[in-house]
Amino acid sequence: MPDYRVVIEYDGRGMVGWQRQKKGVSVQQSIEEAIFKFCGEEIRIQSAGRTDAGVHALGQVANFSLQSSRKPHVVMNAINYHLKPNSVVILSCEEAEPEFNARFSATGRHYLYRIINRRAPLTVDYGLAWQFKRPLEHEAMQEAAQLLVGRHDFTSFRAVACQAKSPVRTLESLTVTRVGDEIQIRTSARSFLHNQVRSMVGSLSLVGTGQWRMQDMQKALEAKNRQAAGPNAPPYGLYLVAVDYEC
Amino acid sequence: MPDYRVVIEYDGRGMVGWQRQKKGVSVQQSIEEAIFKFCGEEIRIQSAGRTDAGVHALGQVANFSLQSSRKPHVVMNAINYHLKPNSVVILSCEEAEPEFNARFSATGRHYLYRIINRRAPLTVDYGLAWQFKRPLEHEAMQEAAQLLVGRHDFTSFRAVACQAKSPVRTLESLTVTRVGDEIQIRTSARSFLHNQVRSMVGSLSLVGTGQWRMQDMQKALEAKNRQAAGPNAPPYGLYLVAVDYEC
Repeated sequence: MPDYRVVIEYDGRGMVGWQRQKKGVSVQQSIEEAIFKFCGEEIRIQSAGRTDAGVHALGQVANFSLQSSRKPHVVMNAINYHLKPNSVVILSCEEAEPEFNARFSATGRHYLYRIINRRAPLTVDYGLAWQFKRPLEHEAMQEAAQLLVGRHDFTSFRAVACQAKSPVRTLESLTVTRVGDEIQIRTSARSFLHNQVRSMVGSLSLVGTGQWRMQDMQKALEAKNRQAAGPNAPPYGLYLVAVDYEC
Repeated sequence: MPDYRVVIEYDGRGMVGWQRQKKGVSVQQSIEEAIFKFCGEEIRIQSAGRTDAGVHALGQVANFSLQSSRKPHVVMNAINYHLKPNSVVILSCEEAEPEFNARFSATGRHYLYRIINRRAPLTVDYGLAWQFKRPLEHEAMQEAAQLLVGRHDFTSFRAVACQAKSPVRTLESLTVTRVGDEIQIRTSARSFLHNQVRSMVGSLSLVGTGQWRMQDMQKALEAKNRQAAGPNAPPYGLYLVAVDYEC
């Protein structure tokens, strides 16, 4: 009963997120149905992170077991064939150790958030970035971001519905850079709370417009209250870029 | 009778190209209709380059005159309003000198061609890049590209239907770089022949797979025959990035 580990890319537009929902198409369901179509096995796959509706992934990781043994490239090509037309694809597939679990074995998660800072609506980037009309001071955002790096109680930056036992997380990095109109926010941690990246980005946008100063970010963190932080940035600017494992 | 100069971005997917066609929606028609909707003037706009169906622009430039005088930002916002939902937008608008002509005043044009070199189908980049499955040697492509830089008769790299009087062009630069799976080909010249970038990219892809060697690119250039060069790369990997003017 071979175990497989796959790296997955998806366009979150029009999808209800990773997890199966009663209504709408989820990434999980798309892949599970593609597996069923090619080998008739009804399985459940587990991913490193359950991304929200509209969120994209360039390097989501998942694992699953099949009854029948097949070469990893055969499994990948068959799933991709049945995923057509693709808003979800398997980028790579390899055999995994039985103890490998995409969620619990992960030692690092890397996210990117894209903001296009301009008046004009988006065309090629529509649904792939957050169009933010008012000018953003990315240097101030970068400075305020550093207040969040390290080990903190991130209660102010987690969804009320977040199911994690502890609100304490260690944020490895949070960097804000700009090239032309595009502001990229990259962040890494062993794990994140539900909506943590989107609420950090929403709060940083308040710093960028000057509505918040450095001390407001500090106060928000210390308040340990979701109401104290900024609103969630929209999901369609967010990308799960990569997940790390020790083996 | 004020003259305006606008910078335009568009997503070429689903569009028949810059120029008005009997069937399908063109960029030119979209903008001209938006102008008519906001001020009732039936005008013709002229662009720096008539991009093909499926080709994108990040910085196309065009000019037009209106009977009635309005501030440039009013013109821009009004056009963008009537272009909704946007696959075409005006990024900036300014008053132009009466002698300004987006096509004939241009002193430089810059194109980008995006190739995603991988087996898996595209998701977020679908229609925004050329998925190329076989491995491409980008260093060999970069080397062969340098044979095309400079002043040459580009008959082998022009559409049979190309209307330019002379096939001689001076290619300022043609560079091939890779980051991960993505190969970017950037090229600049005062002007290009019809399909020149796409036929250069198609020929470079033959070098990248090893089907062509350096001398084959040289032979193709010297042949002065469209049959001697590679096929056109598909339009949806191509972006008109920027156009230069002296004033």
